[in-house]
Amino acid sequence: MRENAVKRVWAAGGKVVNGWLAIPAGYSAEVMAHQAFDSITVDLQHGLVDYGAAVHMLQAISTRAATPLVRVPWNEPGLIMKMLDAGAYGVICPMVNDRAACEAFVGACRYAPVGYRSYGPLRGLLYGGADYYAHANDTILTLAMIETAEALDNLADILSVPGLDAIYVGLGDLSVSLGCPPTLDPTEPVVVDAIAAVLAAAHDHGLKAGIHCSGGAGAAGRFAQGFDFCSLANDARLLAAAAKAEIAAARVDC
Amino acid sequence: MRENAVKRVWAAGGKVVNGWLAIPAGYSAEVMAHQAFDSITVDLQHGLVDYGAAVHMLQAISTRAATPLVRVPWNEPGLIMKMLDAGAYGVICPMVNDRAACEAFVGACRYAPVGYRSYGPLRGLLYGGADYYAHANDTILTLAMIETAEALDNLADILSVPGLDAIYVGLGDLSVSLGCPPTLDPTEPVVVDAIAAVLAAAHDHGLKAGIHCSGGAGAAGRFAQGFDFCSLANDARLLAAAAKAEIAAARVDC
Amino acid sequence: MRENAVKRVWAAGGKVVNGWLAIPAGYSAEVMAHQAFDSITVDLQHGLVDYGAAVHMLQAISTRAATPLVRVPWNEPGLIMKMLDAGAYGVICPMVNDRAACEAFVGACRYAPVGYRSYGPLRGLLYGGADYYAHANDTILTLAMIETAEALDNLADILSVPGLDAIYVGLGDLSVSLGCPPTLDPTEPVVVDAIAAVLAAAHDHGLKAGIHCSGGAGAAGRFAQGFDFCSLANDARLLAAAAKAEIAAARVDC
Amino acid sequence: MRENAVKRVWAAGGKVVNGWLAIPAGYSAEVMAHQAFDSITVDLQHGLVDYGAAVHMLQAISTRAATPLVRVPWNEPGLIMKMLDAGAYGVICPMVNDRAACEAFVGACRYAPVGYRSYGPLRGLLYGGADYYAHANDTILTLAMIETAEALDNLADILSVPGLDAIYVGLGDLSVSLGCPPTLDPTEPVVVDAIAAVLAAAHDHGLKAGIHCSGGAGAAGRFAQGFDFCSLANDARLLAAAAKAEIAAARVDC
Amino acid sequence: MRENAVKRVWAAGGKVVNGWLAIPAGYSAEVMAHQAFDSITVDLQHGLVDYGAAVHMLQAISTRAATPLVRVPWNEPGLIMKMLDAGAYGVICPMVNDRAACEAFVGACRYAPVGYRSYGPLRGLLYGGADYYAHANDTILTLAMIETAEALDNLADILSVPGLDAIYVGLGDLSVSLGCPPTLDPTEPVVVDAIAAVLAAAHDHGLKAGIHCSGGAGAAGRFAQGFDFCSLANDARLLAAAAKAEIAAARVDC
Amino acid sequence: MRENAVKRVWAAGGKVVNGWLAIPAGYSAEVMAHQAFDSITVDLQHGLVDYGAAVHMLQAISTRAATPLVRVPWNEPGLIMKMLDAGAYGVICPMVNDRAACEAFVGACRYAPVGYRSYGPLRGLLYGGADYYAHANDTILTLAMIETAEALDNLADILSVPGLDAIYVGLGDLSVSLGCPPTLDPTEPVVVDAIAAVLAAAHDHGLKAGIHCSGGAGAAGRFAQGFDFCSLANDARLLAAAAKAEIAAARVDC
Repeated sequence: MRENAVKRVWAAGGKVVNGWLAIPAGYSAEVMAHQAFDSITVDLQHGLVDYGAAVHMLQAISTRAATPLVRVPWNEPGLIMKMLDAGAYGVICPMVNDRAACEAFVGACRYAPVGYRSYGPLRGLLYGGADYYAHANDTILTLAMIETAEALDNLADILSVPGLDAIYVGLGDLSVSLGCPPTLDPTEPVVVDAIAAVLAAAHDHGLKAGIHCSGGAGAAGRFAQGFDFCSLANDARLLAAAAKAEIAAARVDC
Repeated sequence: MRENAVKRVWAAGGKVVNGWLAIPAGYSAEVMAHQAFDSITVDLQHGLVDYGAAVHMLQAISTRAATPLVRVPWNEPGLIMKMLDAGAYGVICPMVNDRAACEAFVGACRYAPVGYRSYGPLRGLLYGGADYYAHANDTILTLAMIETAEALDNLADILSVPGLDAIYVGLGDLSVSLGCPPTLDPTEPVVVDAIAAVLAAAHDHGLKAGIHCSGGAGAAGRFAQGFDFCSLANDARLLAAAAKAEIAAARVDC
Repeated sequence: MRENAVKRVWAAGGKVVNGWLAIPAGYSAEVMAHQAFDSITVDLQHGLVDYGAAVHMLQAISTRAATPLVRVPWNEPGLIMKMLDAGAYGVICPMVNDRAACEAFVGACRYAPVGYRSYGPLRGLLYGGADYYAHANDTILTLAMIETAEALDNLADILSVPGLDAIYVGLGDLSVSLGCPPTLDPTEPVVVDAIAAVLAAAHDHGLKAGIHCSGGAGAAGRFAQGFDFCSLANDARLLAAAAKAEIAAARVDC
Repeated sequence: MRENAVKRVWAAGGKVVNGWLAIPAGYSAEVMAHQAFDSITVDLQHGLVDYGAAVHMLQAISTRAATPLVRVPWNEPGLIMKMLDAGAYGVICPMVNDRAACEAFVGACRYAPVGYRSYGPLRGLLYGGADYYAHANDTILTLAMIETAEALDNLADILSVPGLDAIYVGLGDLSVSLGCPPTLDPTEPVVVDAIAAVLAAAHDHGLKAGIHCSGGAGAAGRFAQGFDFCSLANDARLLAAAAKAEIAAARVDC
Repeated sequence: MRENAVKRVWAAGGKVVNGWLAIPAGYSAEVMAHQAFDSITVDLQHGLVDYGAAVHMLQAISTRAATPLVRVPWNEPGLIMKMLDAGAYGVICPMVNDRAACEAFVGACRYAPVGYRSYGPLRGLLYGGADYYAHANDTILTLAMIETAEALDNLADILSVPGLDAIYVGLGDLSVSLGCPPTLDPTEPVVVDAIAAVLAAAHDHGLKAGIHCSGGAGAAGRFAQGFDFCSLANDARLLAAAAKAEIAAARVDC
Repeated sequence: MRENAVKRVWAAGGKVVNGWLAIPAGYSAEVMAHQAFDSITVDLQHGLVDYGAAVHMLQAISTRAATPLVRVPWNEPGLIMKMLDAGAYGVICPMVNDRAACEAFVGACRYAPVGYRSYGPLRGLLYGGADYYAHANDTILTLAMIETAEALDNLADILSVPGLDAIYVGLGDLSVSLGCPPTLDPTEPVVVDAIAAVLAAAHDHGLKAGIHCSGGAGAAGRFAQGFDFCSLANDARLLAAAAKAEIAAARVDC
């Protein structure tokens, strides 16, 4: 089975730089796949992306080496399994707030007897290879989003679910849940402390820790803090910021 | 009929900053339409965009004030008229190399007796308003691309075609046609001189002059040179460059 | 944040005329958005519309002033939130049969601490404005469908859920649930009485009341009865009826 | 090969009521195909329809008995043949202004030795049947649009092209070409006379005559005048008019 | 209401040969619908098919006589009802592991008082006919997948749910659940015995029994064993196997 | 620049087995790309494929090693260039009947000074590499279809056009043009002789010769005859034949 680059980087002690796709187009996904990301996540939650667009984007990513991941809209087994069948090599699941939710999520990503994933990885076999079934449970990544006060309360329970590979901090929702406005660069102590606590707890449980960042500089800071996996804003934000900067440069003398 | 912002800016003595779309998605088009462009061009020639995607993108642009333009793949009346019917407020036509080509192009954008555009602007009526027919010939912009040695030879003939509003310099093809490698920032004298000659000739004929630029800084230079309309790379280039820069920033300490 | 026209009309003591879209196309949505509806609902339940089509339709509606609403297929937080992130300004939720269902529905539409909506309104920010987060909880409309005998039994419980703005009577299902064939113009006393009871109860709880109508004449009757929000059939029914009438007129002498 | 209903109706001395599709959706096409049209035309010229949408619409029409036709954007063999291969049973071609244009159009619809259509009717074989090749030249309808002053001048030449089945009057363009504003219900004598002349000439040459109408009443008048084939506005116009009428009815007491 | 061919074949004592679609395209669906299948299932679980593609495929199938079925991704009422509204004449539901799951599934397919399906069969009315409501509960097929050890334990409970028409054996998952690698041609006794037990139990409860097969030869064996409904691999497998065989034949002398 | 596998195989004295895609879906294209084809052609002429679908299919093919080619609908520079920009590595052009047509076709595939291709290979740069411009003229394949009596008459003129790489025999059209019914396995002497003549002439001019075959066995025969490039039916034919065979096998005892 084709290797999971995220696992390889982590095994080598490295940090994972993850791209994030919200634009529903195969071409922009392919453009992003030609940048030097270790992995690229198709965001089916807040991105403007549904299943059909996501498959197209996964195909575009598959023309290159970056490992394709998805974020699903909600902790529902139907779509989680459908995205894995379509060739995603890992799932970021939002709003994993307690142990039962985490077990349901991880179980949806694993074949029996470990989990309850249904067998039929049609495009997974094309992308992963003919030995997909033998290695899928060890290759597919599971990342549970920790992004509410409730999840903080249940952190140890969540982190001890067998088969969970990593947590992923959702900064917008975590801020909101802790009574602060949403931001990707939080400064309120309650949020800052919560992030540090989640990071420490993940590592204590032998799990990797990922986080959503406002861009490359923010990611560098998170890597320095100890995070193992950082997403750099998303394609739409990058595009908007670049366009804004170029317009300003064009109008410098107008 | 809704006004054409490009005409308004020009009438006020201003310069037009034009966005350029190659990604076939309504969402990225809408993101770009929320930046401060005067006009946005959907590129059906080199962009990964066909008619169906272009209509979606025109609808997305129509949620905002920037005037929607299109570049068509070739000088063919069928698609030129189809894009105007879909609500485009101007057409950039590639490879206008002689007077007959220019007449065919401009005629396709104008109703009789000026031209031979077929009547039936279904979405044009929605976007432009119920008085579309009365004002379309005066509102729709025609920009002929000057991008070959042949066009340079026929420049005066091309520029004197009634109804032509502007020329648009295609730097990649002009460079290639003059024996140089394609670039958006040419330095070879033969290309530099050709650009200056086209600009001067256009203004001599009372026409506006547009050009494709590598970005905002390049556009500022072209505005200073006298150009009236500058396109800033395209969405895919902006995205790629932004992603590359952010990845480098993220990996600064790795 | 851009205002919600439905709330404005209601605040002014007016009645809301709502369009209803079942055809999965941006163009027909845009045609409908050029009629004088106060709001237009994209129907993802019985309409032939999925998420991708719905986003295109929301973009088409956004070219005009009518407020965009959606009906979701089922009371599931994943798609409810995804449609709000895509710019819907209100949600009509089917089969809200008890208080817990209503709480789950309303909570999915509200950020903490009121609800549990996940933050990330990508297109919502474009449509609503940069201050979306500050005003979303007060701007987004929640309409719970009352359409079963079970819901009638639990009516007071449902109507007293904090954050619920209105109920919406589903006539087909209500008729079926009460043992009658489905119709948009019911005459059976049990259905007629149930409608009146729901209307009265909604108003008693300080909520607005909406209902699906067979067309304009039916809506006028419902407005006279006291309803605050009426949907006029759907685009497919309007089209079929118009085509049928025109064919008959064409064949009058054949 | 499946029969062409238009030919059957005409052979029986009847009049053809034709539907017209501008909305790019399979569902609205299927709704229209459930009305009592003899034929339904997918409009790829002024409609918001491209090839991909048109194929979907042809499939939707094929669930019913009405014969599927297309109007192409321009007199170009590539797309004419592509639509026939996709199962269209006839082509309405715009802007047939002289004999050479008519020959090019008709030739694109006929296999050698009559014409130069390329063989490979993939969906045509599914829709028409395994004996498609043997009967296609006799089954496929060719309708040349007469809609310019130039075409009026060349009328006899155009009408005498072998293999042409019918003409189709484009009222908007004919009006514009004759110096009048576009309308589907012309009253200017120059246009009225031209219509009568085209009708008479078509019948003199043994051809059928079709025309675009504003609706059923207009079509009844055209049938009475002698026309053999009438199109009833289009789906988008029917929808807009129906919505407008229902909104007015809903607001009668507001 | 249009009859259900599967029910007709079964009523006549026949066996149903079912096609299976994983390729998200209307054209391949139409090609398959021109083969001699009794029914064709659009697979929204493991197939690369979402709602939008599925509707297109149902329309393509509706051009022919084979009865359209769907397999849904998961036992969720929202999408089950949406597919029935779109004209599916039966639903194969995965992972029906206990009586409650079976009741939820069957209820989603039946109008009250039998079930809780919401009324609004927009395309169902086009495909089925105007009397759809009166006959839908008796026409729509429900097939529960038996594919886990848990389902085997609860078999009698599942099979006795009123309104269930048939079971469908999922061989891949059943194998995995029983500790064997997934295959469509199992030979392990534990799987072979389980299949026989499910078949016998279904017939004992007066239900029909369906199964997924590796192809025609496998299906012939299953029919001989007593199964009533056999699916022949899927379109993608058929295509891959055919291409592989033809390539080998082409290279025979290379 | 990524190499062209067809050129590599030919340079090594080998024969090219080419797949042929008529189904407009990325998934089926990817399934085909996992078979052992040397090249795969997306057919935009008779296939049910337009530009948008073709790009998706090219992306799917790009996940594997087979070289992507396209057949265009007609000899038109706009779409030929658009497909090359999208990453096609060669173009099969129908109906090349004389020298001027061949020059127009080949010129559209080559940058100046050899041809007149417009520069802007957006996806070509992703697929081919950053040095695309330097090598494109030598890498992109041009195959002119010889399929009419007129082309046979002009054969030497056509074959001597500089930059033409190969001819491609279209058997259906060649048969029709020579007065025979269309077939992929012709036996009429006039067609058989014409094929042999074209093959010999191509080789005499130093060009390669390709041909469309009914399947693998037919291709083996053509390779033995001397052809260098054989296409194996198309995906839809392979699917239909496979389904037919499997259904027969399933019904063997019914």
